[in-house]
Amino acid sequence: MTMQNHRTVQALEWTGSVLKVLDQRQLPETIVYDEYTDAVGVTEAIVSMRVRGAPAIGIAAAYGVALSVRKHYAQSNHWRQKVAADIEMLAKSRPTAVNLFWALDQMKAKLAKPLDNPPAAILACAEKIQADDLAANRKMGEFGADVLAGAKGVMTHCNAGALATGGYGTALGVIRSAFNRAPIKVYAGETRPWLQGARLTVWELAQDGIPATLIADSAAAWLMKSGAIDWIVVGADRIAANGDAANKIGTYSLAVLAKQHGVKLMVVAPTTTIDWTMPSGDLIEIEQRNPNELLPACYNHEGSLVSAWNPVFDVTPAELIAAIVTERGVVLNPAGQGVGGLRHAI
Amino acid sequence: MTMQNHRTVQALEWTGSVLKVLDQRQLPETIVYDEYTDAVGVTEAIVSMRVRGAPAIGIAAAYGVALSVRKHYAQSNHWRQKVAADIEMLAKSRPTAVNLFWALDQMKAKLAKPLDNPPAAILACAEKIQADDLAANRKMGEFGADVLAGAKGVMTHCNAGALATGGYGTALGVIRSAFNRAPIKVYAGETRPWLQGARLTVWELAQDGIPATLIADSAAAWLMKSGAIDWIVVGADRIAANGDAANKIGTYSLAVLAKQHGVKLMVVAPTTTIDWTMPSGDLIEIEQRNPNELLPACYNHEGSLVSAWNPVFDVTPAELIAAIVTERGVVLNPAGQGVGGLRHAI
Repeated sequence: MTMQNHRTVQALEWTGSVLKVLDQRQLPETIVYDEYTDAVGVTEAIVSMRVRGAPAIGIAAAYGVALSVRKHYAQSNHWRQKVAADIEMLAKSRPTAVNLFWALDQMKAKLAKPLDNPPAAILACAEKIQADDLAANRKMGEFGADVLAGAKGVMTHCNAGALATGGYGTALGVIRSAFNRAPIKVYAGETRPWLQGARLTVWELAQDGIPATLIADSAAAWLMKSGAIDWIVVGADRIAANGDAANKIGTYSLAVLAKQHGVKLMVVAPTTTIDWTMPSGDLIEIEQRNPNELLPACYNHEGSLVSAWNPVFDVTPAELIAAIVTERGVVLNPAGQGVGGLRHAI
Repeated sequence: MTMQNHRTVQALEWTGSVLKVLDQRQLPETIVYDEYTDAVGVTEAIVSMRVRGAPAIGIAAAYGVALSVRKHYAQSNHWRQKVAADIEMLAKSRPTAVNLFWALDQMKAKLAKPLDNPPAAILACAEKIQADDLAANRKMGEFGADVLAGAKGVMTHCNAGALATGGYGTALGVIRSAFNRAPIKVYAGETRPWLQGARLTVWELAQDGIPATLIADSAAAWLMKSGAIDWIVVGADRIAANGDAANKIGTYSLAVLAKQHGVKLMVVAPTTTIDWTMPSGDLIEIEQRNPNELLPACYNHEGSLVSAWNPVFDVTPAELIAAIVTERGVVLNPAGQGVGGLRHAI
């Protein structure tokens, strides 16, 4: 297995004083990093979707807290209140990805302890979250590749790659690891409305020398019927205790279609994506984004009869999932058992 | 029932000397008609997708033959051979829509008869094809609305409207007729890669005062799960004798998803769309279009590892269709019986 490419693409880079965020909205044509020095900026980077993907959002938010401490600790005796306000603001940037809240909780727990050098301690905490995520992705890559053994073709949806994480990727980490063992045909859905598949996934795979074939999202069923794919491999934005998984809109569609075509669905996510206290996916809040992400501008006028319904995520019930792959291990056929067994696993 | 709006939008207009073709690639922002005076031009209008939709392609091709006769009859003793060559050219413009071949066969049959004034007789034949299509759509609208009685929400895919036909539309004709009887909530999939739903369907419905909600194609399953729709109503590009129906890529996906959610699928098409001699949809040729319709331009270079798979149609098996609506009547649950009973129906 070769690892040399696992840092080809970095969504986030900490320079020692600023957080550099790759503006993913401009990929694949333009590679531009924006630099942020405070939590307001990082919040805006998340809201505007410069950075996206559940683990990467969590990591960005952690650095946002580190920047907040750095700024306010030097300026004010009331720095803890100002940092708490920044954490509140960061928590409101996106509603669905549980990694965001998990990362902020980690930072809050650290802040609640006595600290000799708060800026350094909090920064170290953010850096550890990023390093742990990368290490988790490498582990998941190997676990997932074991499960995919013998598969000839796989399809992924959205971008659960290096761009969505601390590096290497969750779903794309599994595909990278599998491809390193034996060539496998990779298909990617373009993933409307933001086209993460077209703009990010096939680009990221090509950067690593992995050929990828793009399809319209609605062509997936026809592709499955052709027999070209054995597995669908996706990430997750939140996994409930019963194994239900929220992910990019269209994942539920693929899951239903896969079941009908004898194709299996693998969800790959670190345990930080699991919401242990949420019993069922039915309770997951689904973000609705601006209809203008779908609507041509000419419909956006007073009295227009044309509207859009733009949920960003959907929830796939555990019954439709063949494997949930985490850094702590794999749960096969999670329906019934859920993912609780992973909670205290090492 | 009101009919006043049924000619709001015209894909094709015969002026008396030229065929005006609405350039649908520029909708909804710009309404431009291009004018064609010969079969070469009409072929280009079909190939370039200025005009699209199975019935409209057939009508355009018929006018292409009329223009061919008009031009060559005046210029050459060998006009019949030149017209035959133009018919061959028109037949190669798109492969899937059977209406194209049906319309050209009508023209050939007319040409095979003794004609006093060939240009006038052939033009009359083209005009009759267009008028008959409009009349058929009105009938289908009423038949389909009968079947939809009581439905609260419907979804359509691609554009099977006035823009795809001689006027009024097939699937959208049914939705127009149903809406005229009682308001019904209408959803449209945006229909990648050409976005016919976003650019044409919701625009055409709004022109007629019918509110429409656009969704990403991959959101359809999640919409079905919410209980918002009772029926999916689509057109067809070719229907085999056993009731299998080729239509825009994504229709098969919707059909499988509908079955799993207790939603019914209606296919609306004139009998000119039925290929009586084709026993099964498995034999329908599926057009593959240029990968660049899906791929961002930056992937289009020598040695690129990124490709695309771009089938334009898929085939929905009769078992997944609850109703096939034609101008000769409705076939409920076509699986097993097929559509042969319509062949000699009046």
